[in-house]
Amino acid sequence: MSGSVATKNAGALYASRISRVRQEMQRRSIDATLLSIGHDLPYLTGYYAMPLERLTMLVVTHESVAALVVPRLEAPRVTPFDDVFRIVPWGETENPVSIVAKLLVGAKTIAVGDQMWARFLVELMSFVTNAKFVRAVDVVGPMRMAKDANEIEALRLAGAAADRVAMQLQAGEIALVGRTEAQVSADISARLIDQGHDVVNFAIVAAGENAASPHHHAGPRVIQENEIVLCDFGGMMNGYCSDITRCVFVGTPSRKITSAYSVLYAAQAAGVKAGVVGATCESVDAAARKIIDDAGFGDFFIHRTGHGIGMEAHEDPYMVSGNKLTIVAGHAFSVEPGIYLPGKWGMRLEDIVVATDAGPVSMNNVDHSLVILN
Amino acid sequence: MSGSVATKNAGALYASRISRVRQEMQRRSIDATLLSIGHDLPYLTGYYAMPLERLTMLVVTHESVAALVVPRLEAPRVTPFDDVFRIVPWGETENPVSIVAKLLVGAKTIAVGDQMWARFLVELMSFVTNAKFVRAVDVVGPMRMAKDANEIEALRLAGAAADRVAMQLQAGEIALVGRTEAQVSADISARLIDQGHDVVNFAIVAAGENAASPHHHAGPRVIQENEIVLCDFGGMMNGYCSDITRCVFVGTPSRKITSAYSVLYAAQAAGVKAGVVGATCESVDAAARKIIDDAGFGDFFIHRTGHGIGMEAHEDPYMVSGNKLTIVAGHAFSVEPGIYLPGKWGMRLEDIVVATDAGPVSMNNVDHSLVILN
Repeated sequence: MSGSVATKNAGALYASRISRVRQEMQRRSIDATLLSIGHDLPYLTGYYAMPLERLTMLVVTHESVAALVVPRLEAPRVTPFDDVFRIVPWGETENPVSIVAKLLVGAKTIAVGDQMWARFLVELMSFVTNAKFVRAVDVVGPMRMAKDANEIEALRLAGAAADRVAMQLQAGEIALVGRTEAQVSADISARLIDQGHDVVNFAIVAAGENAASPHHHAGPRVIQENEIVLCDFGGMMNGYCSDITRCVFVGTPSRKITSAYSVLYAAQAAGVKAGVVGATCESVDAAARKIIDDAGFGDFFIHRTGHGIGMEAHEDPYMVSGNKLTIVAGHAFSVEPGIYLPGKWGMRLEDIVVATDAGPVSMNNVDHSLVILN
Repeated sequence: MSGSVATKNAGALYASRISRVRQEMQRRSIDATLLSIGHDLPYLTGYYAMPLERLTMLVVTHESVAALVVPRLEAPRVTPFDDVFRIVPWGETENPVSIVAKLLVGAKTIAVGDQMWARFLVELMSFVTNAKFVRAVDVVGPMRMAKDANEIEALRLAGAAADRVAMQLQAGEIALVGRTEAQVSADISARLIDQGHDVVNFAIVAAGENAASPHHHAGPRVIQENEIVLCDFGGMMNGYCSDITRCVFVGTPSRKITSAYSVLYAAQAAGVKAGVVGATCESVDAAARKIIDDAGFGDFFIHRTGHGIGMEAHEDPYMVSGNKLTIVAGHAFSVEPGIYLPGKWGMRLEDIVVATDAGPVSMNNVDHSLVILN
């Protein structure tokens, strides 16, 4: 995805966001913030840069208008907001890093976006000596984490669309036995698009022992009867992401599986319930993990409980031990504990949750149980 | 795409490549090379890292076995080559950057991969003070640029598959008039997969005045009779990329268009012909550009003539004024001049070319003319 995405009152929205970035820069004594590929740039300008070797860079200083350094070739694809940023196009034989460096004259502390190519930072360091570089995520992240009402509505719509696909899975409308994981993955992907997604980010389908690898790629393995099928899928709709995991079982699950699933179910519900304003991120992890630990499966829950979500599929805040960040209204994150028995089976249950002043609200409301298909 | 891609004798290939990296590091007094996301990592290890916030990093020092720092979660997806690299998994509550830093003790000059997230470099700078950072592309790039026989064969197969889709376009098998650019783009994408591609990287379809924007996104514009339709598409097949541009015209082109096209045709042929071993990259650009300049269209050829191609759609070497790099056997690059009249029409003609000791060899051999469809 690249190019500008225009929405109503976008100019005022971007102006207000960049002004908040400047306030945060002031507070942290940062002279300039540099944003290249990644989602901070469209969050502040509406423009998605091509993730290629031609540099695009938004330079935010304490001047009133930011500068968007962009390949001349791409400049026509930027929707301009003259009060917010000026466009600085560069030609094919110019060095864009030196253009950025000129805009940084005198800057002592420079924040750089997470996903900027390290190449450009290395090149910049040879132009801008004696400056200190810090992470832009600490400047823009807190703003991006706390979603406003429009953003939450976009997450809700994306979640509802993912729910409709999960419902089809649970209703047995997506054939499983006899098809490969890859075929089912393609089927789920097509259904996400049918339900309104613009892009599919991933559609993990993992059967039986493959489900024990949390990031398994759907492959040539043919799905059999009497095994668990883990489906973890999501995409982007109107610029915001969905992400859901449900497991189904074709046949009759063993007692071991049903009892482990009841632990997982309780752990996930506890994680969601813990996602209240004022709690720490690590307490969400702890709430889910305690139930799995207490049931004796602690060694088989091998990842953090969740990640933030918004314009990106994974973004701050992370629900992980050690993250003492306090949850505020508008924080959106996954709650997705799992139990993985290597070589045997795995299971995971995931919703996207938004913290609100009225408590945690789940964007995914489709049946949370291990649905048995015949 | 992520996970390991295994091929025959892969271990020996990776060992040999990493050993050449170490030789180049020695020559340049580089103590360590750090490779994260991007294609240098799979080039040296077969492993594609997930482009996410969890750090994957290959640390190549002058020790005999490199270290692959990888999220514990992803470790099962790495095909190990114990003689080439050891796997250093990190847990969800560890700081992977400090693990990398420990592997770098004493390193004074550190090369970092182009596409590593700048976030990790910024964080690393707080652990590794007084080190100098340089670009890993200067170490690994020359090796990756000069493709071996297997790599050239992969490019040839990908090019032939793209040619078959272009042939369908030129034969009128892909309906144009009355469909939107986006529909035709989806059609071309599906045909690339049908012809053996694993992934579609892009399928630009630009009609009429839209063709004047070189990176136009296929959109809702309905294709009409009597306009040029520019199609620029490519993807990945067996790990190597294709990229081709052909223009077709439904109806009767004006004299202006046919005469401009004949200039473009000659310019592209001249660019291909100039891509000989021993020439500079900028001379390929100059050869194509001179013909367009001489015909008076110089102001309307607004981009470089080409980019390198291989595991990545765009990589070194770039065919651009100022690039005095000498072409060696195995260099693979696009030759794609264009003429763009803003608001009116645009045209581009592109082949992938491999420089060999026997002269430039085109990976695309489908008809180069402006094919007229009725």
